[in-house]
Amino acid sequence: MAKIVFLGSGNVATHLARALVKKGHKVLQVYSRTKQNARLLAAELDAGFTNDPLKLNTGGDIYIISLKDNALAEVAKKINFGKKLTVHTSGSVSMNVLKEVSENYGVFYPMQTFSKQRKIELAGIPFLIEANNSRNEKLLVEMAAALTGKANVYRMNSEERKVLHVAAVFVNNFPNHLFAIAEEILSKNRLPFGILKPLISETIRKIMDNSPARMQTGPAKRGDKKIIDEHLKFLDSYPEYKKIYRLISKSIADNQNVKRNL
Amino acid sequence: MAKIVFLGSGNVATHLARALVKKGHKVLQVYSRTKQNARLLAAELDAGFTNDPLKLNTGGDIYIISLKDNALAEVAKKINFGKKLTVHTSGSVSMNVLKEVSENYGVFYPMQTFSKQRKIELAGIPFLIEANNSRNEKLLVEMAAALTGKANVYRMNSEERKVLHVAAVFVNNFPNHLFAIAEEILSKNRLPFGILKPLISETIRKIMDNSPARMQTGPAKRGDKKIIDEHLKFLDSYPEYKKIYRLISKSIADNQNVKRNL
Repeated sequence: MAKIVFLGSGNVATHLARALVKKGHKVLQVYSRTKQNARLLAAELDAGFTNDPLKLNTGGDIYIISLKDNALAEVAKKINFGKKLTVHTSGSVSMNVLKEVSENYGVFYPMQTFSKQRKIELAGIPFLIEANNSRNEKLLVEMAAALTGKANVYRMNSEERKVLHVAAVFVNNFPNHLFAIAEEILSKNRLPFGILKPLISETIRKIMDNSPARMQTGPAKRGDKKIIDEHLKFLDSYPEYKKIYRLISKSIADNQNVKRNL
Repeated sequence: MAKIVFLGSGNVATHLARALVKKGHKVLQVYSRTKQNARLLAAELDAGFTNDPLKLNTGGDIYIISLKDNALAEVAKKINFGKKLTVHTSGSVSMNVLKEVSENYGVFYPMQTFSKQRKIELAGIPFLIEANNSRNEKLLVEMAAALTGKANVYRMNSEERKVLHVAAVFVNNFPNHLFAIAEEILSKNRLPFGILKPLISETIRKIMDNSPARMQTGPAKRGDKKIIDEHLKFLDSYPEYKKIYRLISKSIADNQNVKRNL
C-alpha cells in the first residue's frame, strides 16, 4: 500500500483520494492553494494539510497532482520531486510536463465526470495510464486496476489521451449544457423539465448497443425545413441557443448528405 | 375499442399502431404514399393498405396522421374527414391545421425517439394531448393512458407542445449528434467509442435528480483556456466540429458568467 501526497483538492482529487484510502492506501498530506475545502478533505482523510509548496511532505511514495492545468504547470516549475513517482490526472496535458519535475513520472487519468456533491463508484470507470518506464507503468496499472477492475485500465499515450478527452467533452460537457438549455427554456415557459427524462433515457439506451450515427432522428435528419424554421423563430428570444440550434442542425444535415452520397 | 386508420408508415406510426393493436384496438387500414414499408406494416397489423388518399377506408372511428409535416399539410388540403375524429402525432404542428379537415380533431403526440429497428415500451412515455372539445380530449386521454399510464398523459396546447418539441430536439437529436461526432473522431484515431460509455451513463444519471446547470463540468466551465485552445487546435482537421466546440464552449462560459454575476 502506498503513501500518497495529493496536490489539489478539487473534484478529481477528492474522489480519487477517497477511493484510494478505501483500498488501503494512506494519504499523508493534501496540498492546495486555497485553504478551506482542502482542509476539510485533509481532515476527512486523516491527512496533513499545507498551502505552501515548500512544505510538501517528502515521505510519500506517490505524488498525485490534480490541479487546474495552468496551476499544474506552475507547480511543475517550482517543485522538484527527485526520484518520487509523480503523476497528474489530466486528460489533455502531456505526460512530458512532468519530465523536469521527477525522474519517475506518469499519468493517472480517470475518465469520468466528478461533482463533489455526488458519490461515484470508480469501479467500471476507464483509467488511462501512461508512464516514463515500464516499472512505473506497472505500478500505476495495478493501482488503477484495484479501483476499477483490470478490464477498464488502458495504456494510452498523451496523444491518444488528448483525442479521448476531446471526445469526452463532446459526450459529457456539451450534452449536459444542452440539457441545461432545455431546462432553461422549459422553465421560462413554466413547463417541467422532468417530462423530458424518459426521452433522455431512451436517447442513451439507443446508443449503448447501436452506432449513434445510425440512431439519429429529428427534423434536421429528416430535412424538415418547415419545422426547423419554426423552431428557429421560437428561439429568437434566445439568440445564443438559436445559433447552437442552427449549427448543430446544419451539421446533422451535412452528415446526412455525406451518407446519401456514399 | 376503436377502429383506426393510419396515415403514414414511419417510425411513429409503426410503434403507435403496434402498441394500439396490442391494447385491443383494430387498425383497419394503412395509407402511405410509398408502398413497400407501408405494405409490410399493414400485413403485420392484418390491415388493408392504400396509396391513394381517395380510397381511404371510411369506416374508421379515429384517423391518425403520422406523416412528415409537409405531407401532413398536403393531405389536410385534399381529404375531408367529415365528423371523424382526426388527430396528428406531431410535436411542432399546430392542432389548427386539422380545423378544415374534420369537425372533430386533436393531437396525439408521444414524446419519444422512435427507430424502426428498436422495440420500445410506450409505458412511461409522456403523451401530449390536445383536442377541439372536451369529449374528444377525454377520448384521446383515455387512449393514451391505456398505452403509457395515466400519470404520463399531459393536456398541452399547441404553443406548449412546440416549446417541448424544441426542448426535445436539444436533449435528444443534438446530444445524439454529439455522440456521433465523438464516435467519428475516435474511429478516425483508431480508438474505441465504447470507452466513453461509462462517462455517458454517468452524465445522464447526474441529471436524473439534479439540475443540469448545476452539474456542468469541463474546461469551458472551469475557464481553462489552455485546454480549450489545445482542443480547438486538434479540431483543425474537423472544421465543422471545431465550430460546434467553440460555440457551445462559449455558451457554457457565458452561462457561468451570468451565474457569477448574480
